[in-house]
Amino acid sequence: MLETNVTERFDFDAYLSHRRKLLEHKLALYMDGGEPEVLWEAMRYSVLSGGKRLRALLTIAAAESIYPGCELAKAAPDLDCIEAVMPLAAAIEMIHAMSLIHDDLPCLDNDDLRRGKPTNHKVFGEAMALLAGDGLLMLASEVLIAKSDKHIKPANLLDVALGLSRATGPSGMVGGQVKDMQFTGSAEGNFDMATVESIHAGKTGALIRFALWAPARLLGASEKQCQSLARLGEIIGLAFQITDDLLDVTGDATTLGKTPGKDEASQKATWIRVFGVDGARKKLALMEAEGESLISENSLDNGSAPVLLSLLKYSINREK
Amino acid sequence: MLETNVTERFDFDAYLSHRRKLLEHKLALYMDGGEPEVLWEAMRYSVLSGGKRLRALLTIAAAESIYPGCELAKAAPDLDCIEAVMPLAAAIEMIHAMSLIHDDLPCLDNDDLRRGKPTNHKVFGEAMALLAGDGLLMLASEVLIAKSDKHIKPANLLDVALGLSRATGPSGMVGGQVKDMQFTGSAEGNFDMATVESIHAGKTGALIRFALWAPARLLGASEKQCQSLARLGEIIGLAFQITDDLLDVTGDATTLGKTPGKDEASQKATWIRVFGVDGARKKLALMEAEGESLISENSLDNGSAPVLLSLLKYSINREK
Repeated sequence: MLETNVTERFDFDAYLSHRRKLLEHKLALYMDGGEPEVLWEAMRYSVLSGGKRLRALLTIAAAESIYPGCELAKAAPDLDCIEAVMPLAAAIEMIHAMSLIHDDLPCLDNDDLRRGKPTNHKVFGEAMALLAGDGLLMLASEVLIAKSDKHIKPANLLDVALGLSRATGPSGMVGGQVKDMQFTGSAEGNFDMATVESIHAGKTGALIRFALWAPARLLGASEKQCQSLARLGEIIGLAFQITDDLLDVTGDATTLGKTPGKDEASQKATWIRVFGVDGARKKLALMEAEGESLISENSLDNGSAPVLLSLLKYSINREK
Repeated sequence: MLETNVTERFDFDAYLSHRRKLLEHKLALYMDGGEPEVLWEAMRYSVLSGGKRLRALLTIAAAESIYPGCELAKAAPDLDCIEAVMPLAAAIEMIHAMSLIHDDLPCLDNDDLRRGKPTNHKVFGEAMALLAGDGLLMLASEVLIAKSDKHIKPANLLDVALGLSRATGPSGMVGGQVKDMQFTGSAEGNFDMATVESIHAGKTGALIRFALWAPARLLGASEKQCQSLARLGEIIGLAFQITDDLLDVTGDATTLGKTPGKDEASQKATWIRVFGVDGARKKLALMEAEGESLISENSLDNGSAPVLLSLLKYSINREK
């Protein structure tokens, strides 16, 4: 009972809105000016166009969950933990935006609309969209390293920079994208769980896992905390993807802001094809329960601000 | 007189061939296996396809030029300086290969041949070539950080990782590529020196400058040595590009391995359009003289192995 009351008292919407505002401000700051002007304009077009910001919010929430018990809090007691992970959160959002730009290109998904706006290549042309994506990949690493607080240990920052490369590269996001491409349109439509799991562990899972693990590593949390957050990242990443696949079948076009049924039409390897709608819902309930236990057993949320718990539930119960 | 004799005794070809062999071995090792298999095959196709390896050779030569006087040599006397910069040299070659893959794509230069072989997208398709390029960008950072020797100071490695992002990103290589695209085909054909300089400082210059500066920073050379090598990198990068532009006008198709006259046909912003052929040759002579002084004044080569001097001359006097 107590748990429920506490959750009700916590104003999750106000929390999200405040943290998002801080992030948007930093993103705009990190991407201000720059030349060649048109390249920066193309990069800003995709990064500063809103979106849920789930990855960045997870990073901020994870930082709050391990603060003030971490190394950095002891080394620099006046430092604000949200401020300290902003370069990391911004880098993650840049990588995410970059992946959408390249995914939308004619040689991949050939999408004209993204979040209700024309896709990057529709506005800036294919060549510029390609280069804006390349630019964002490198800008993400640059911002992470150049803008991180001087109190952060170089060895921790190196670990995180390495983790970002791995989560994004051939064994992570890019690899998942290739697998998705290989299986999409596969006429027989028989996907086993291992295949779908392996696609999504790379394509969306690796970066979401990183978004929760990295702030803990950066601020110098204990190894146990880092690992618990990494596991929570796997759970949220998987739950997020199953929900995405469900919404494509059960969602409403107006609420979604995109046309449902695209996965089916393009014969994507989705969780629905493995489990069916009911099976996917059951799987989601299991993921939610595992996430809840993990958070409570590892005291990752404090009682008055169940931030990670709320984000877990949000990933599953969202309508778009 | 002495200078000439020493240079003649030094077997530059044997040197190049030995260092290239070490590099090729490491590249193959760093890129062995991996899945999804087709993605790794596509990445290997472009990275392990030979080429001059100028950037990696410059990195190795710069490391040799500051050894054994640097911090790392004192901290770990048994460490081999060539071995120590191999992850860096490999990362630079991966970035270079990635830039060629994306440059060759239909939406950019639309080239079918590279080094006498079909381009990446001709073999693997556009989508895979796009993703192989993205994968290589991240693999480069991963190899640099994960494979670097544990004796290298984390703060130095971080500086180098940051330098790599900057040399490659929107203010470096990617930015130069955008500028090149903006000016190519410009019908009036009036390019001033500042425009051409700014294109090439980004497109090829930034990575070549980095290739010379980074090993010095990584191994802990003095700030003066780092700066001298960075300047030498600017000189070699510029000389290399002017020579490239010259060869496109005066070169022979068989020796070049590609069709000359492409720059003129596609109205590229080249040094020849700024200076003319004779002017470009004069400019090259000036660059060579400045490079020679810089090397000798800063004792960057030892007498018996004028490696950097030979690489400077090679960048200018090559026939392909």
